Amino acid sequence: MNNTDFNAVTVKIAVDAWHMQMGRISKLIDGLTDEQLAADTAPGRNSGYYLLGHLTAVNDRLIDMFGWGARLHPELDEPFLFKPDKNDLPKPAIGELRSYWSEINAVVNTHIESMTAAAWFERHNAVTAEDFAKEPHRNKLNVLVSRAIHASNHLGQMTYLQPKA
Amino acid sequence: MNNTDFNAVTVKIAVDAWHMQMGRISKLIDGLTDEQLAADTAPGRNSGYYLLGHLTAVNDRLIDMFGWGARLHPELDEPFLFKPDKNDLPKPAIGELRSYWSEINAVVNTHIESMTAAAWFERHNAVTAEDFAKEPHRNKLNVLVSRAIHASNHLGQMTYLQPKA
Repeated sequence: MNNTDFNAVTVKIAVDAWHMQMGRISKLIDGLTDEQLAADTAPGRNSGYYLLGHLTAVNDRLIDMFGWGARLHPELDEPFLFKPDKNDLPKPAIGELRSYWSEINAVVNTHIESMTAAAWFERHNAVTAEDFAKEPHRNKLNVLVSRAIHASNHLGQMTYLQPKA
Repeated sequence: MNNTDFNAVTVKIAVDAWHMQMGRISKLIDGLTDEQLAADTAPGRNSGYYLLGHLTAVNDRLIDMFGWGARLHPELDEPFLFKPDKNDLPKPAIGELRSYWSEINAVVNTHIESMTAAAWFERHNAVTAEDFAKEPHRNKLNVLVSRAIHASNHLGQMTYLQPKA
């Protein structure tokens, strides 16, 4: 394989991993009633609603971080990222949050599809040019893989929202 | 960057992701008593013991899959991979299982460190040469990333073994 082929292979691995995790989360929540999604994933642990808000905020932040323009729902950060579950900040209704999840992922996925393989090896907006020169692995590809791993962590918890087999 | 540099960056992303997840699991279980680890992660769900056995078996299988020689504990597959939790097959004591986890990861990590960047783009033993020719992304790097994502899924569940904050 030449340089271009190696990069295409690498990008496919990361992008497939991203789509697989996001697809699994979408499938899981689509199969849950609002009541099931609102429940705690385990006694005294985060609710499905909180984890969905958390993952939605994290995905929305990619839009900024990758220089794709203005993110859609920055108001999600306070209640779902910076504060723990059961905080009393204003939050979207559960149906709205489901829409945000789909809407944000559609935007993110459109941008992902439009990227060249080489662009994945470029710097994102959360690392300075100086740091990136020293640590060239802190690229967009790295962030995408990290986000897939992060989503998988919470997906494992959200599977507990499903009725027991 | 040239071809070699791109590959080195990619391999660092995947290997770092692997080490991060395995390190988090090790840290989590090291902080749990045997009794805490033996508990169910949530009511009626998999126990920490079962999930540790499951992850240990999956890591052990990498040794075979990557052509690194004979795996250490194939007897883990039946009780921790092929059968669900609470099966009555013979299983190692919890202390033994903790040792297997460390022992297997030490072997895997030694092999990981000895691999060249190019070797990560090669075929593993779970894909045929014919399929690999058509789907060159089904390489060892892909498996390592998939395993980090899989481990993260169960790590999310195992964090529920910790006392509530």
